[in-house]
Amino acid sequence: MPSTVERRHSSPGSCAATSEAGAASLGRRYAAVRALSEQYCKPLEKEDFIPQVEEYASPPLWHLAHTSWFFEEMLLKPHLPQYQVFHPQFSYLFNSYYESIGERQARHRRGAITRPGVETVFAYRHAVDDAMQRLLDSGVAQDKQVAYLVELGLQHEQQHQELLLTDLKLAFYYNPMLPVYDQVYNEESLQGKSRQALAGRVNEAMAVTASGNVAGNILVAEGLYDIGFAGEGFCFDNEIAKHKVFLPGCELASQLVLNREYLEFIDDGAYQDHSLWLSEGWDWVQATNASAPLYWQQHNGQWKHFTLAGLALLDPALPVNHVNYFEASAFAAWRGMRLPTEFEWEAASGRLDWGQRWEWTQSAYAPYPGFKVSSGAAGEYNGKFMVNQMVLRGASITTSPGHSRPSYRNFFHPHLQWQSSGIRLAK
Amino acid sequence: MPSTVERRHSSPGSCAATSEAGAASLGRRYAAVRALSEQYCKPLEKEDFIPQVEEYASPPLWHLAHTSWFFEEMLLKPHLPQYQVFHPQFSYLFNSYYESIGERQARHRRGAITRPGVETVFAYRHAVDDAMQRLLDSGVAQDKQVAYLVELGLQHEQQHQELLLTDLKLAFYYNPMLPVYDQVYNEESLQGKSRQALAGRVNEAMAVTASGNVAGNILVAEGLYDIGFAGEGFCFDNEIAKHKVFLPGCELASQLVLNREYLEFIDDGAYQDHSLWLSEGWDWVQATNASAPLYWQQHNGQWKHFTLAGLALLDPALPVNHVNYFEASAFAAWRGMRLPTEFEWEAASGRLDWGQRWEWTQSAYAPYPGFKVSSGAAGEYNGKFMVNQMVLRGASITTSPGHSRPSYRNFFHPHLQWQSSGIRLAK
Amino acid sequence: MPSTVERRHSSPGSCAATSEAGAASLGRRYAAVRALSEQYCKPLEKEDFIPQVEEYASPPLWHLAHTSWFFEEMLLKPHLPQYQVFHPQFSYLFNSYYESIGERQARHRRGAITRPGVETVFAYRHAVDDAMQRLLDSGVAQDKQVAYLVELGLQHEQQHQELLLTDLKLAFYYNPMLPVYDQVYNEESLQGKSRQALAGRVNEAMAVTASGNVAGNILVAEGLYDIGFAGEGFCFDNEIAKHKVFLPGCELASQLVLNREYLEFIDDGAYQDHSLWLSEGWDWVQATNASAPLYWQQHNGQWKHFTLAGLALLDPALPVNHVNYFEASAFAAWRGMRLPTEFEWEAASGRLDWGQRWEWTQSAYAPYPGFKVSSGAAGEYNGKFMVNQMVLRGASITTSPGHSRPSYRNFFHPHLQWQSSGIRLAK
Amino acid sequence: MPSTVERRHSSPGSCAATSEAGAASLGRRYAAVRALSEQYCKPLEKEDFIPQVEEYASPPLWHLAHTSWFFEEMLLKPHLPQYQVFHPQFSYLFNSYYESIGERQARHRRGAITRPGVETVFAYRHAVDDAMQRLLDSGVAQDKQVAYLVELGLQHEQQHQELLLTDLKLAFYYNPMLPVYDQVYNEESLQGKSRQALAGRVNEAMAVTASGNVAGNILVAEGLYDIGFAGEGFCFDNEIAKHKVFLPGCELASQLVLNREYLEFIDDGAYQDHSLWLSEGWDWVQATNASAPLYWQQHNGQWKHFTLAGLALLDPALPVNHVNYFEASAFAAWRGMRLPTEFEWEAASGRLDWGQRWEWTQSAYAPYPGFKVSSGAAGEYNGKFMVNQMVLRGASITTSPGHSRPSYRNFFHPHLQWQSSGIRLAK
Repeated sequence: MPSTVERRHSSPGSCAATSEAGAASLGRRYAAVRALSEQYCKPLEKEDFIPQVEEYASPPLWHLAHTSWFFEEMLLKPHLPQYQVFHPQFSYLFNSYYESIGERQARHRRGAITRPGVETVFAYRHAVDDAMQRLLDSGVAQDKQVAYLVELGLQHEQQHQELLLTDLKLAFYYNPMLPVYDQVYNEESLQGKSRQALAGRVNEAMAVTASGNVAGNILVAEGLYDIGFAGEGFCFDNEIAKHKVFLPGCELASQLVLNREYLEFIDDGAYQDHSLWLSEGWDWVQATNASAPLYWQQHNGQWKHFTLAGLALLDPALPVNHVNYFEASAFAAWRGMRLPTEFEWEAASGRLDWGQRWEWTQSAYAPYPGFKVSSGAAGEYNGKFMVNQMVLRGASITTSPGHSRPSYRNFFHPHLQWQSSGIRLAK
Repeated sequence: MPSTVERRHSSPGSCAATSEAGAASLGRRYAAVRALSEQYCKPLEKEDFIPQVEEYASPPLWHLAHTSWFFEEMLLKPHLPQYQVFHPQFSYLFNSYYESIGERQARHRRGAITRPGVETVFAYRHAVDDAMQRLLDSGVAQDKQVAYLVELGLQHEQQHQELLLTDLKLAFYYNPMLPVYDQVYNEESLQGKSRQALAGRVNEAMAVTASGNVAGNILVAEGLYDIGFAGEGFCFDNEIAKHKVFLPGCELASQLVLNREYLEFIDDGAYQDHSLWLSEGWDWVQATNASAPLYWQQHNGQWKHFTLAGLALLDPALPVNHVNYFEASAFAAWRGMRLPTEFEWEAASGRLDWGQRWEWTQSAYAPYPGFKVSSGAAGEYNGKFMVNQMVLRGASITTSPGHSRPSYRNFFHPHLQWQSSGIRLAK
Repeated sequence: MPSTVERRHSSPGSCAATSEAGAASLGRRYAAVRALSEQYCKPLEKEDFIPQVEEYASPPLWHLAHTSWFFEEMLLKPHLPQYQVFHPQFSYLFNSYYESIGERQARHRRGAITRPGVETVFAYRHAVDDAMQRLLDSGVAQDKQVAYLVELGLQHEQQHQELLLTDLKLAFYYNPMLPVYDQVYNEESLQGKSRQALAGRVNEAMAVTASGNVAGNILVAEGLYDIGFAGEGFCFDNEIAKHKVFLPGCELASQLVLNREYLEFIDDGAYQDHSLWLSEGWDWVQATNASAPLYWQQHNGQWKHFTLAGLALLDPALPVNHVNYFEASAFAAWRGMRLPTEFEWEAASGRLDWGQRWEWTQSAYAPYPGFKVSSGAAGEYNGKFMVNQMVLRGASITTSPGHSRPSYRNFFHPHLQWQSSGIRLAK
Repeated sequence: MPSTVERRHSSPGSCAATSEAGAASLGRRYAAVRALSEQYCKPLEKEDFIPQVEEYASPPLWHLAHTSWFFEEMLLKPHLPQYQVFHPQFSYLFNSYYESIGERQARHRRGAITRPGVETVFAYRHAVDDAMQRLLDSGVAQDKQVAYLVELGLQHEQQHQELLLTDLKLAFYYNPMLPVYDQVYNEESLQGKSRQALAGRVNEAMAVTASGNVAGNILVAEGLYDIGFAGEGFCFDNEIAKHKVFLPGCELASQLVLNREYLEFIDDGAYQDHSLWLSEGWDWVQATNASAPLYWQQHNGQWKHFTLAGLALLDPALPVNHVNYFEASAFAAWRGMRLPTEFEWEAASGRLDWGQRWEWTQSAYAPYPGFKVSSGAAGEYNGKFMVNQMVLRGASITTSPGHSRPSYRNFFHPHLQWQSSGIRLAK
């Protein structure tokens, strides 16, 4: 399986970098983002930093180190005079997939890395942070390209923050003890005060109501729409350039599909009915004996699901989570509807209540008009993954604060369930 | 691997069927199409009808029987009174992937079918033909839905005619004897008189010139374009309905990429340069040790390629053939260009010289706006394959006469090379 | 999977060759053995010669050609002056696994060989036969080494005769039509006149009675026994040299385990009871969902099995057939007994009623004391397969007449079921 | 892959247990063995306890817990009144392969266990130790069966001590940092004082000289030999009962094959010469691109190997280590010799200098005459692994002190290299 998770970086394209925000502001932002990664690790024991339970998931240790490696490789080495690398082998060890930068640890063997251990990796982080502060305090960060790379590193780190949590959840799930990451950290309550306590994020309460009924649908009129990033600030290269897309008109459900609706789908025998599934989806159902979303378990007729706060009763009123594209597509077929395209989603996004789940679209991940692959390592960020993956739009409760926007394009292979992904219907 | 080849049938959607052409005309067409399948088998020995050398390829015997099964299952059983099935087990044996119709022979075990043998399968064909003529002579074929299904069966048979030739080529290639299918049957000379002799097709001579130079490019202006089938006659359900697509403006090469250009790509070390490839493409190169298109062999510094007329010198002036999407995409990257979208291709198609190779587009196979999956077996035709496959446009020298139009959407998985597929550049 | 079936040839070791029998006698024997192979093919249609349905099974066409290749490669090329090879590529095409002789067609692609077709392969056989008769008529065959190689070629052909039938049975089984090879050819009646008619073999009637009861057991007393081939005539290199083995004393069932006993084993839930199985055997049960021997099917509560005469009612009074080592071992455990070692079997063989089934022993295939790997291609015959395979002793109803002796060592991987293999208990 | 490493336990067969040694003696031995496991972990960081880098290797954490589980499950639960289990889920979590005891954590997911963490697992050990001391102090341990189970638990723990070191070595090797387990812990110097310091073992110095020369060979005369355990004290069920084996007479090299000899084998092109290898061995060479023993690396023409003390120069005078059966067999073929059978080895053992490497024999792992599978969980110890594995005799420098005897039968699959395994030639 190709690497599915480390690929969403941007090249310094035409979208505006943050230089005008000033070095001081960037420094504060740097500190806040970097701190959140470490805050996420507070509930962890040293042992928890190590396991890699699937090739597509990485250990927490690796996330912490790789995000630091990114700053060292892209900023400190080329732009900070007299910078001494923390350890000469880390360039090899914590490279994810950048062929241009050279050899690297085989992806499926990240779980063998116990040395450097947790303390050394934190020391690495702090050494990088110190050097980055020197760089930010110097005049170098006034350079637009440098400021862009700093912002890129922070966005990169935020992506890995979400992956850290989702990978950790998977690792804990493969442990029959079903450990609790944090009692107050329940993904479903992240909007509440515990999430605030943990991450400082303030989310508006989201009133969840039954989805899919026409009355509550959002209408998108026929016409030409501007798609792609167009504002100030940061975006990834796959979001640019802004371009026009003609939409024939559609309706999007104002609400995500809820667990209670998904239970009806299960109870209706959907996992046994080939007619609802894409051909490869049906192959997946049969090969894996799938019968419910990832993390769902039935105990004595009662549905539970595994969360970062442990095994919990499934709340029928919450949006379904951890479905893959095949399941999302089958659910839509069962309802006689479909998934939106990523363009329909973006056109409607201003009127959607989004941010709880990454939302599968029926759009395959492809370049926008005018997309150019940059030269050098930056060119390996997005373009080379543009085949066999589907776009997800929105953001999830696990997405880092400040790391979402309507033009954001997430993407995963259609069989993967371990991200916080849900369903919005369209017709 | 999911079935990649038997999926392009249509449901009786909104596109106009052929009823007005009259039963007599339809009968003549029926006879001509069915005859071509058998004509293709003239050079075959009985043994050649049997091998299945890859799961995605089928034996000639199976193609001949399955296309007859289609008429029996869709027309004769439901619409011809007192029809007696030729053999009660054939419904199971020659079903390709229609889950609705019931159990079927496992796809990878088609090569075990030696009984019914060649003579019985031809007898089956002729029994079906006789019954179909009775049906066509009766008033039943006046029914629009019935006429549509007859035409669908013929289109289906034409698709299998191309597959029969490409599957056969692969089987012969896996035989170190590199057998000759027919001395006069050279795919590259199909436009000439031998092709006429074999298939009755009349193709205009195609002047092949160097491709990719800006001077010869076709300009597609920015604007809204009508995409999808809109005329009279038959189309598949994946071509409808006509809808508008906004294109930002582009240039398409007037000519396909030639073997001589592809040799430069090889000689430039492209198969050793990760930077040109999609990530999954690079995985494919390394896993298969790919270094050239399928069927290419280098003997003493000279490039040859396997054809249905045997091993032949590679003609540098012909369009490259048997490349997969990964190779097409890498070639485009090497030239600093890209592949067209299927919409750009269709918009330009009136000015393109197409029909020699199926042309990879950068569009993933997805439903058009308003696409509906039909109920019953017909619903399994196209929709369920709309994930992880790329659209190819145009037609190839192996495509049956009368089986191509600008709105036709072919599709295959990006790693497959065995179809007659080439490259057209865009920017 | 390594090649499991083409490996039982012998090097010209110390065992006596047949030279004294005289060239005339050898010539008659040559003709008879070669004729039987062709007689076996009489019920076949041309199409039946082609399929290779598992990598470990080969097409009839290949068996016919490969056995001729053996004579051409080992006798005609080196020993017949002015011999002209039938076709220069056949050396490559029909080599099975002799690395020393050079490159060869990949084992799993034998099913792609349709040219040469059946007629050419028969012509090849006959050309080889003509040349072999010239060689046998000349003085060359007086040479002991040459005579040995001729006999080796015949023994080799006899091995492939059995494989031809068992591979064919498997291929027919993978065809849902379950074709009949020959109405009078029922493996279970091979002892009767139909077998005589087909193969000229005369087998004594075998009275089959209940097995495993102590009363009917054969006692082998404690002591030293001579093991290995010791007589006149041919043997394979893996049967020599005769050597002493100390046996602690044992009892062997006088009869093979019967279908009725195996049905009790099934009905007792043996395929669901891990405690009866070797660890790898239990893995095999779970991975394949095995619940009965190969070729068994339950229809409306009635057990049938597929034979070369088609699907037939299972006769409870016949010895169980088509079980692998794991099943044989589990059955023995269920009965509180065990399988014999190959030495116990050989020591008792004079008093056993054997020849209906190859009998799994608990002996892994290993070299006898003093076993030497010969130099050249002959050295690849037996020795290189002496790991991960189990010895079977005896012979089966499918074994060619004249091709069995008490010292004969057959061997297969423990998971394979497609040979005619049964169970004899010991304690 | 089936579990290859947790299977060498014994049932309470006829071999004498240790009851007469007295509870006090047993208690001291219990304390010493248990302490060594923990002493081995002293150089480890918490992170090092977690990785499982191959399905056949286990994390240190698991070894520590599973060995304690064994005492809890086999002794404390059934034999210590009022024993309260440490944690109700540990029975599931730390079961290795005992189907009789119930469900268990999937073998390949042991690396997901981070909770219980290191401290809890040590607490578990100590709680088990306390309870075991109560049991040993009580009269219960006077019972012969109970004393046997205690001794079995200790032998089991000693087996896991060796596995802990070899699994750890593999995990460290998959880390490109090539961590040092302990500077003074060099496997090759374990005979010296550092080993004494670590494990308290006293090994006689072993003079290593050139091997394989006839002069230094040990002659084993033709005759009957007693094989199997026959003394006082503990043995596994696979070593009993003592029985006679007839040997035809042979010579065994007095010394193991040295690195310098193995280097000649490599330099002679052995890894490119099919004629030296078993067929499955040659498949392994080609599939893995093997060119040297595990842990060997060539740097600038100099051979190094990875050890628990880090990367070190290869000492040509030491016995070769970490070869699999295929390599051992090929080396013997290259020398025109063979590997000994396990019976030859045992017959000669009194005159062999053994204990540095586990020595591959050409004997497949099979039951001794009269071997009985015990009922209950104990019956799953040895018998169910008796297929597709080869016997190794002797012991290695990594084997725990007191855990070796001439009748000891170790066994592994022929492709595995990660144990401390070497080569002794025979003819």
